[in-house]
Amino acid sequence: MENSGIVLTSRIRLARNLKNYKFPLKMTGEESNNVVEEVKNAVDRQNLNYKLTYMRDLSDVEKSVMVEKHLISPALAEKKETGAFLLSNDEKVSIMINEEDHIRIQTLGTGMSLKECWELSNKIDDVLEEEVDYAFDRELGYVTACPTNIGTGMRASVMVHLPALSITNQIEKLLIGISQLGVAVRGVYGEGTKSMGHLYQISNQGTLGASEETLIDKISQIVAQIVEKEERMRAHLKKNNLYEIEDDCYRAYGLLTNARRMSTEEAMKLLSLLKLGKEMEIIDKAKDKDIYRLMVKIQPNNILSSTDTELTTKERDKMRAEIIRNELLEN
Amino acid sequence: MENSGIVLTSRIRLARNLKNYKFPLKMTGEESNNVVEEVKNAVDRQNLNYKLTYMRDLSDVEKSVMVEKHLISPALAEKKETGAFLLSNDEKVSIMINEEDHIRIQTLGTGMSLKECWELSNKIDDVLEEEVDYAFDRELGYVTACPTNIGTGMRASVMVHLPALSITNQIEKLLIGISQLGVAVRGVYGEGTKSMGHLYQISNQGTLGASEETLIDKISQIVAQIVEKEERMRAHLKKNNLYEIEDDCYRAYGLLTNARRMSTEEAMKLLSLLKLGKEMEIIDKAKDKDIYRLMVKIQPNNILSSTDTELTTKERDKMRAEIIRNELLEN
Repeated sequence: MENSGIVLTSRIRLARNLKNYKFPLKMTGEESNNVVEEVKNAVDRQNLNYKLTYMRDLSDVEKSVMVEKHLISPALAEKKETGAFLLSNDEKVSIMINEEDHIRIQTLGTGMSLKECWELSNKIDDVLEEEVDYAFDRELGYVTACPTNIGTGMRASVMVHLPALSITNQIEKLLIGISQLGVAVRGVYGEGTKSMGHLYQISNQGTLGASEETLIDKISQIVAQIVEKEERMRAHLKKNNLYEIEDDCYRAYGLLTNARRMSTEEAMKLLSLLKLGKEMEIIDKAKDKDIYRLMVKIQPNNILSSTDTELTTKERDKMRAEIIRNELLEN
Repeated sequence: MENSGIVLTSRIRLARNLKNYKFPLKMTGEESNNVVEEVKNAVDRQNLNYKLTYMRDLSDVEKSVMVEKHLISPALAEKKETGAFLLSNDEKVSIMINEEDHIRIQTLGTGMSLKECWELSNKIDDVLEEEVDYAFDRELGYVTACPTNIGTGMRASVMVHLPALSITNQIEKLLIGISQLGVAVRGVYGEGTKSMGHLYQISNQGTLGASEETLIDKISQIVAQIVEKEERMRAHLKKNNLYEIEDDCYRAYGLLTNARRMSTEEAMKLLSLLKLGKEMEIIDKAKDKDIYRLMVKIQPNNILSSTDTELTTKERDKMRAEIIRNELLEN
């Protein structure tokens, strides 16, 4: 499963709050700064060597790039005055401060690595707990600003790439079925549940009444089922619709390597097909290319951040096409 | 004008009938054979060395290939029992026998070459006239089966490629204007006036009351005007919409060189855009390729004729994509 390319990234996020402060929404500017200071000092004392960045020191584009790279949440980017985050050098750990809760520890991993992410999050959580006083209730567990996060305060998310289920219109039914299991599914880089590039995020809905390990096992099992469905659909396509799917994938490659302008949405769709073709071994192109990395690179703000000048949508579409051509055609 | 690639081919067709026979529609099989014999003998006596082929000796596919290559008319292909034609080695001269009229002398040339085609047709006409008795009326001129051909019996046709006028939706208005000048415009390889590959055929409607030279001058002038309009539109696009048109042309190239299946209609549209891009010097691909030749090569019956086996539409679309890729990608 790890090598199929279907599971792209895993993420664990722990919501924590400090005992002696109001929730971020109710804090004054001074209190917010104190929270940042307190967390920063705790991290430093433990020699974690994470870099602190205040939201107020980032431009809108810089903030959006962080969001597109999943290093911070959109909600933190909104906290223009009071938000901050600590980031590890390898960008695998991000501690968001003054988002909805005082602290959100996030760990990122590639492929199906929820357990590794959980272990890392847990370690950082323990380390912080030595330094700060968490708000904790014996009955409920960790106290959070929003009741949906109460309990373990943990959200486990897995990003999956489901092109075969998407292009055969199986995805809707599948997602409805999954959401009935107490699991949230949403598109990545899309509005609401709208998906771009056939990317979906699977995560737990509840955080209460089960241990972190139980929740992670549940998500892992559901993801394994989805991956199996995607793999079965790919095998089905290869057996019954090879000609059509080959055509789709090669056309995608032809457009990606030739177009002179391209919207994010089109690029995501075509890159998804190219990724599928490579993994199904029906296309003999872009062999050593990391298509998912390219998907992130061509997001609107990632493109804006690569240049000093303001760009119109037209110019951005032109630059996007250029980036894709260069990336796919270089040896 | 000759080198712009806008005027593809010129064609002159002369309708002639033999004095001592009924029109083809009313002839018996024996009479039809006698007409073929008489024309064949006349040609042979003049050492013209044209090859005689009876329609009844050709398969449906072979006949359609001849039509797609414009060597015979669709109407002759319908004359399954009585039709025949004499073809010169260089395929520039085709004498159709027992089509609507007993004899139709057709000469084909590349670019704007109506005058050269007329001179050649005229020479062949004179040569034949030494051997056979034409039906001729002092007042009306050459007598033909259909009154629209009476007089000179000449039709002058020019095939033009008008992608810039087509994609900017200027073509409809232009064609309506032209048809009011007593000139017929029809799409090439399309049903009725529907065009494929932005190819149009311009020809005279009337054949009476003017000399051949006058009719040819008139068509030549109208074609020159159309060519100028197409050229002006290309200059306009290059100046104002370079980005968009470049994108269109490169996308066409990307699809043509990658797709695994392609319908005639899509192939014609994309080849037309590639041809436009080459001529506008905005695309640096397929430099030494003859795109018009490829347009003919991928017509349905041309593809069928390249293989011995029966092909489904699906198989034909696959083979078409293969032919295009091989042609455009070979060095």
